[in-house]
Amino acid sequence: MIAARAAPEAASFETVAATSRMVIEGVTPQVDGGRFPAKGSLGEPVLVEADVFVDGHDRPAVALLHRVAGEKTWSEVAMRPLGNDRFRAEFEPQTLGTHVFTVEAWIDRFATWAGDLAKRVEAEQDVAIDLLLGAELVDAALERSRGQAATRLKKFARSIRGGGAEAALSPQLRALMDAAADRSGAVRMEGQLEVWVDRERARFSSWYELFPRSTGPAGVHGTFADLEDRLPYVARMGFDVLYLPPIHPIGHRFRKGPNNSVAAQPEDPGSPWAIGNQEGGHKSVHPRLGTLEEFRHLLGAASSHGLEVALDLAFQCSPDHPYVIEHPEWFRQRPDGTVQYAENPPKKYEDIYPFDFETAAWRELWAELRSIVDFWIEQGVRIFRVDNPHTKPFRFWEWLIAGVRERHADVIFLSEAFTRPKVMYRLAKVGFSQSYTYFAWRSAAPALRVYFSELTAPPVRDFFRPNLWPNTQDILTEELQGGGRAAFIARLVLAATLGASYGILGPAFELMENVPVAPGREEYRDSEKYQLRDWDLDRPDSLRDLIARVNRIRRQNYALQTDRGLRFLPTDNEHLLAYRKVTVDGANLVVTVVNLDPLRTQRGFVDIPTVELNLPPTEPFEVHDLLADARYSWRGGRNYVELDPGVVPAHVFRVSDQARVEPEFEYWE
Amino acid sequence: MIAARAAPEAASFETVAATSRMVIEGVTPQVDGGRFPAKGSLGEPVLVEADVFVDGHDRPAVALLHRVAGEKTWSEVAMRPLGNDRFRAEFEPQTLGTHVFTVEAWIDRFATWAGDLAKRVEAEQDVAIDLLLGAELVDAALERSRGQAATRLKKFARSIRGGGAEAALSPQLRALMDAAADRSGAVRMEGQLEVWVDRERARFSSWYELFPRSTGPAGVHGTFADLEDRLPYVARMGFDVLYLPPIHPIGHRFRKGPNNSVAAQPEDPGSPWAIGNQEGGHKSVHPRLGTLEEFRHLLGAASSHGLEVALDLAFQCSPDHPYVIEHPEWFRQRPDGTVQYAENPPKKYEDIYPFDFETAAWRELWAELRSIVDFWIEQGVRIFRVDNPHTKPFRFWEWLIAGVRERHADVIFLSEAFTRPKVMYRLAKVGFSQSYTYFAWRSAAPALRVYFSELTAPPVRDFFRPNLWPNTQDILTEELQGGGRAAFIARLVLAATLGASYGILGPAFELMENVPVAPGREEYRDSEKYQLRDWDLDRPDSLRDLIARVNRIRRQNYALQTDRGLRFLPTDNEHLLAYRKVTVDGANLVVTVVNLDPLRTQRGFVDIPTVELNLPPTEPFEVHDLLADARYSWRGGRNYVELDPGVVPAHVFRVSDQARVEPEFEYWE
Repeated sequence: MIAARAAPEAASFETVAATSRMVIEGVTPQVDGGRFPAKGSLGEPVLVEADVFVDGHDRPAVALLHRVAGEKTWSEVAMRPLGNDRFRAEFEPQTLGTHVFTVEAWIDRFATWAGDLAKRVEAEQDVAIDLLLGAELVDAALERSRGQAATRLKKFARSIRGGGAEAALSPQLRALMDAAADRSGAVRMEGQLEVWVDRERARFSSWYELFPRSTGPAGVHGTFADLEDRLPYVARMGFDVLYLPPIHPIGHRFRKGPNNSVAAQPEDPGSPWAIGNQEGGHKSVHPRLGTLEEFRHLLGAASSHGLEVALDLAFQCSPDHPYVIEHPEWFRQRPDGTVQYAENPPKKYEDIYPFDFETAAWRELWAELRSIVDFWIEQGVRIFRVDNPHTKPFRFWEWLIAGVRERHADVIFLSEAFTRPKVMYRLAKVGFSQSYTYFAWRSAAPALRVYFSELTAPPVRDFFRPNLWPNTQDILTEELQGGGRAAFIARLVLAATLGASYGILGPAFELMENVPVAPGREEYRDSEKYQLRDWDLDRPDSLRDLIARVNRIRRQNYALQTDRGLRFLPTDNEHLLAYRKVTVDGANLVVTVVNLDPLRTQRGFVDIPTVELNLPPTEPFEVHDLLADARYSWRGGRNYVELDPGVVPAHVFRVSDQARVEPEFEYWE
Repeated sequence: MIAARAAPEAASFETVAATSRMVIEGVTPQVDGGRFPAKGSLGEPVLVEADVFVDGHDRPAVALLHRVAGEKTWSEVAMRPLGNDRFRAEFEPQTLGTHVFTVEAWIDRFATWAGDLAKRVEAEQDVAIDLLLGAELVDAALERSRGQAATRLKKFARSIRGGGAEAALSPQLRALMDAAADRSGAVRMEGQLEVWVDRERARFSSWYELFPRSTGPAGVHGTFADLEDRLPYVARMGFDVLYLPPIHPIGHRFRKGPNNSVAAQPEDPGSPWAIGNQEGGHKSVHPRLGTLEEFRHLLGAASSHGLEVALDLAFQCSPDHPYVIEHPEWFRQRPDGTVQYAENPPKKYEDIYPFDFETAAWRELWAELRSIVDFWIEQGVRIFRVDNPHTKPFRFWEWLIAGVRERHADVIFLSEAFTRPKVMYRLAKVGFSQSYTYFAWRSAAPALRVYFSELTAPPVRDFFRPNLWPNTQDILTEELQGGGRAAFIARLVLAATLGASYGILGPAFELMENVPVAPGREEYRDSEKYQLRDWDLDRPDSLRDLIARVNRIRRQNYALQTDRGLRFLPTDNEHLLAYRKVTVDGANLVVTVVNLDPLRTQRGFVDIPTVELNLPPTEPFEVHDLLADARYSWRGGRNYVELDPGVVPAHVFRVSDQARVEPEFEYWE
């Protein structure tokens, strides 16, 4: 075995493997040259590709080798040529954790010879000497074979020596020769690449966020017991992750009142992100929500409804947090002796003290923060939504996530970072399973196309898993403020079909709450961040049934459960955004069309790439709008759609399997 | 100094540099993760870019460090922010050979603080404590300073403590603080990257190929002396490289006759690529051309005409080559005892024996081939056009080129490989200075745009230097066969302005030879590969004067001497291809428009990006057609052109410096 990338020293023979003519390069998935693992998940094949070639016209044979990290033996899959010297194979991981792969290649002398022979035979040349050469190759394979294979090879060699060009080109001989390939000169790419394999929910998840304290009777602080009563409501909508803002005691000093006012009244509950007071900190439960035992009970109840609880990890303190007293060295002191509060000049957040990650006592600080995660894992939590991860060092996250996963490979971390693109990407690289995105601010068709094309193409798709939120407790977009019901539905459908993971803040979302704190601001008025809210869940205009339908569609269509397979389809109306998602095996094909204009009916034609999707070019085929449960007969490459925002501004078509002309699919990406 | 990329071990503190918050990634130029050097050349700045960022909103300061390989001290250049966390700087190498660079970054605490302060001041906040924090930063810088700088810093600290926010934000203080930056926590990207710096001709060259044996009197085998007489003719056209097909003795067995016929007559000269006979091989000169001494004389004569002679390196043998007798082990034997000739099934080339690079005697073979290059270098040759490099191992070339350059960094290798794209690119990566391309077969506007956009964008532009040939001894395109004079001019202008290096096979090109060997074939009839030709160089329709003008334009416009700075401009007529080339400093701007239709006059509008090119948006500006020496007044972003193939089917406009509205240019790429 020869490392393909060891550079020969100038003018020195001995460091050069002269017989190594093979080149292996451009291996994917590969994140920053292998510095970080690519992301995979159970139930999803890992597609590996490589450029492999030799000088001259010899044909390479290429194999993908993969194994679970720490195991000794490789599993091997033959890589098939895609054209232009690129090869592909896939494997489907069966266990969580790190999987390792590499690519090996060797010259396939028999295939090279057979390919040449076929051309010579076609040109009616004398192939007597060529057959002798081939027989020698078979003889050599014979030496490497035993039993029946050897017997059969011996017969083939004899037949070829006797002038049997047909025997030489038979698939039977080809299979025997493949099995006995001479890999003594095989070359492997230098090093190995890694894929971190998560459980399925890291790839495919539907999040519902709510404030537990708003689940009680009107005006009364809700409890975990109240929240348990709410579980059927959430479950019926089809979500699988229930995300709770911080559930810890809330600080008193500088507590914010309704609408972020600085003058809080004694009864104001404060922001849950101002964590900690005399009753405890990050490992404590807000007494008015309940006890730790009640929290554990909630986890069980949620689980019985198919819901997994996600907790918020906000690594910051209120001025009343016990850490502030016990560990002043974890905070930055100002020249006047006060503790440095959070700020984004000129904005000040006096109710929040950030940790000083540059403290000399960083080891103790890191260990304590890690112990918070461990504590909640012990209680049964396996999903964390991490608040503002971009204000803590990337290395801290890399260390923390790797450490947690060493013992609990099933833990999922969602990065809440609406920051610069490269910062968001880096957080994903260092280990975050999912990431918030700019989705909320991408509303026009060209912007959506550009952004989601970037997210779903290499290199980003290999390390970054978007989680799309039309709204959050911090974001009420202008579009939702002014677009009415149609805007809510359009954004819901976009989030749920563009992304394999998405989430909403309820009940604000399904009740179409749309009043901003002030004109021109993109935040909620009377936000639950600062006050209790009482919601009329049974309002007849609630979107809950539609949401349930959308989530059911997601569960029934695997194409929507992965961020691969997305491609935008041309339309002749820029208000109509159309795209298809299709599974790797081509078996599930969903075409979504959304009217981005919440005010007017939009009509137009959508281009369907019938050849690429193996649809009949001229015969009619059935498309089933899963949202409206209506069936249409389409025909050919251009089809008409008309979407009235007054009804439902979107189609989610499943294209019937029966419509497809070819049973065997190439891989779409 | 902390390596930025060392991955922290899970759950282990000690391997983590907690204070290292800096991220450096995406450093360019970088070829295959640093496996190969990028290419640079004298007279051309190396542009280095990197993504650099920190968690939170601290500002990074970034420096490019570079040095000649083997030197100990780094030169340093500050990198400037381009937006989106990307930074750039450049250095201009002053010596041939390997240059090394790396990127270092640290948190600029003073700039971060000053930026925050400015925002607070603007918001009219109380900044008393902030000023104290700033004064502490100045105090710390004071500790790192001496002499006058220290004195001035001391004054600044006092003034800031006294409430001097204005002093704190002064550029004078900024400069002092930059000079005394605290780089104790600086981080460097892991490893270093390399740039191989060639002489200018590797980047910018104009090649003229001719067959020396066709330079004699009609019907008589030409000599080096005849070729010397031809030098003024070539030099007057403005070329700087004179490329000669192999000049060695030519084999007799299986010699090919005119038009590649298998039945050669005794007087047929044979193909110069069938190298070697009883009179010698790769280190010998064909006796009818002259002696080695006469060849050396030719080199001197060429040099006095500003021409450098490029030799052909064709590592293959005629059946009569001395190697075939002396080193049968360097060739592959067939089962019937004959030597394996070259073939591309079903085609056979019985007059050519390829070397067997898998021979057990590969060390001796490689050493001998290397000695051929050394031999001609000793004679004074510094440029080699390498025939069919893709049929020899990549590692062989990597070893050979590196070895040659160890002693002669000025040697240029042109790769003649019209093969698969990845193979062509790999040859460039392993060391070839220039490469033949698919240019000859890119004729429509979209194909030209796609191909040249790929060649001039990273990563390709960092390792691949195209050399564009409208014709070669092997290629007479359909376009040239049927397009007449206009096609020749259009292809000449395209080659000479799209590429910093280009070449033609003369006199066939300037005399517009256009007869194919057979209908549908893209090879010359009566090709000089197989016979002598007699050319009427003084034909009145010769393109030689136009070629001279084109080469003069290239010499006078630096924008045409580099493959950077190319961008295509939209036109409303697909027969009109338009593009601009501009220098890194923006000082030289050339806009070329070519009518790709050799038969009809084409008219249309060309879009000029006035803002990007710092041209006046509405005022008129002058463009000077350097081909026709005509001046036009253009105005605004769209301008009319009309090109009659019966006259000259191209404009090469120089846009007047005086037209530009801004003296300072950003870098265009």
